[in-house]
Amino acid sequence: MLNEKIKKHISKLHQKKYREEFCEFLIEGVKCVNEALDCADVDIIVIDGKRRDEPQMKNIIEKANKKDVQVIFCARTDIGDIKTTETFSGVLAVADTLDIIFEDLRDGKPIIALEKIKDPGNLGTIIRTADWFGLYNILLSEESVDPYNEKVVRSTMGSMFRTKIFQSKKIVHTLEQLKKDGYTIIGLSSEGASLDSLKLQSKTVYLFGSESNGLSKEAREKLDSILSIPGNGNAESLNLAISAAICCYHISL
Amino acid sequence: MLNEKIKKHISKLHQKKYREEFCEFLIEGVKCVNEALDCADVDIIVIDGKRRDEPQMKNIIEKANKKDVQVIFCARTDIGDIKTTETFSGVLAVADTLDIIFEDLRDGKPIIALEKIKDPGNLGTIIRTADWFGLYNILLSEESVDPYNEKVVRSTMGSMFRTKIFQSKKIVHTLEQLKKDGYTIIGLSSEGASLDSLKLQSKTVYLFGSESNGLSKEAREKLDSILSIPGNGNAESLNLAISAAICCYHISL
Repeated sequence: MLNEKIKKHISKLHQKKYREEFCEFLIEGVKCVNEALDCADVDIIVIDGKRRDEPQMKNIIEKANKKDVQVIFCARTDIGDIKTTETFSGVLAVADTLDIIFEDLRDGKPIIALEKIKDPGNLGTIIRTADWFGLYNILLSEESVDPYNEKVVRSTMGSMFRTKIFQSKKIVHTLEQLKKDGYTIIGLSSEGASLDSLKLQSKTVYLFGSESNGLSKEAREKLDSILSIPGNGNAESLNLAISAAICCYHISL
Repeated sequence: MLNEKIKKHISKLHQKKYREEFCEFLIEGVKCVNEALDCADVDIIVIDGKRRDEPQMKNIIEKANKKDVQVIFCARTDIGDIKTTETFSGVLAVADTLDIIFEDLRDGKPIIALEKIKDPGNLGTIIRTADWFGLYNILLSEESVDPYNEKVVRSTMGSMFRTKIFQSKKIVHTLEQLKKDGYTIIGLSSEGASLDSLKLQSKTVYLFGSESNGLSKEAREKLDSILSIPGNGNAESLNLAISAAICCYHISL
């Protein structure tokens, strides 16, 4: 059974400040919990007691037992406090946040960098897309949405456990450091040469601005070049996740 | 002032059945209302009375006056019934639905076809992205989300007025008709040859399956070929709007 202490602990993890304090976050849903068991350090799994006999729950219980992860069954009355979605999907995990440091990103492979990204769905989708294309290095600026936010976690569809997400405290300093290491910094914007003209090379950062304000003046000063996604239609702009996806596709061609 | 009769009419338009009955839909926000005034038949504009002196509202009022569109100012107490977003953006329009028939799609240019798409954000983003790449022909199957759904309209960012969205009553019949007209039907799926191998030609339909079930068996029987988006990472799938965007980019290269 889910005791009050654990229930309270889980409900605290809905808030960023507690996720940071405990270095833990919540993962909901069969697919994501399975991925977490494969790739992350899971502390506890909570399963809706009424659904414990469903085959997919049984699989999770078996996998958790093999890894010595505690499984707790909860009552329907507990769900309101712990669920991360409107309709609880029956299983939730508490896992340790991933400990990605700057060094992890500096392996020479492309880096997808995001400045002040605000929309959790956009960030989750970008992580999932980057994982599809085998681009595992993701750099987030200060003031970006928390990658351990429940909606981000959900929309990565498990990909967050396979990518390396480094949260910079000051992205212009991180970019400076990468430039010293021989990285080229390419900004993506609505102006600039066409993405088609890009000559692929190792050690490249692809930097995207925020949904509302684009690239900041300070970040622009660090760029080696600016590229844009060619379009011959009339829309004023593309959604950020769409721009990032097209860039990921192009650089993986 | 906003009288009860108009307020009631607007609040009905939150529901699909009334949108279909009245052939009208709601558009909220400065950008979308401006686009609607440029491209659609707008019946009424409602503006938050307390914001009527803001420059962007003044622009809308001026444009509406030139087009003989009635502008009504509403009280803060009216907003709850009419708004389409959590935080009302200050301006809302009632416009006639666009009257797109099958013939409008048969101009030989590429058609982006979507089978049972359910997520309004995905549909809106696909419309916006297609407009960016100058791909204006969009075919929706039966049981797809209503393109006049408020969230779809909002996420098109005005692009829905520039694209031609045809809602088929039975997509397999529509595909058959297009094949008779000489169209090639290409399905996008996780299996199939790489999108890179695509030889561009006129009269092509690019068909995408639903978020949860992919392409249906019946639709698959109409395909001339199946293509997939190449990825060398580990994510199991791509988000539908992302797949469609990469396809749009590729065919407009």
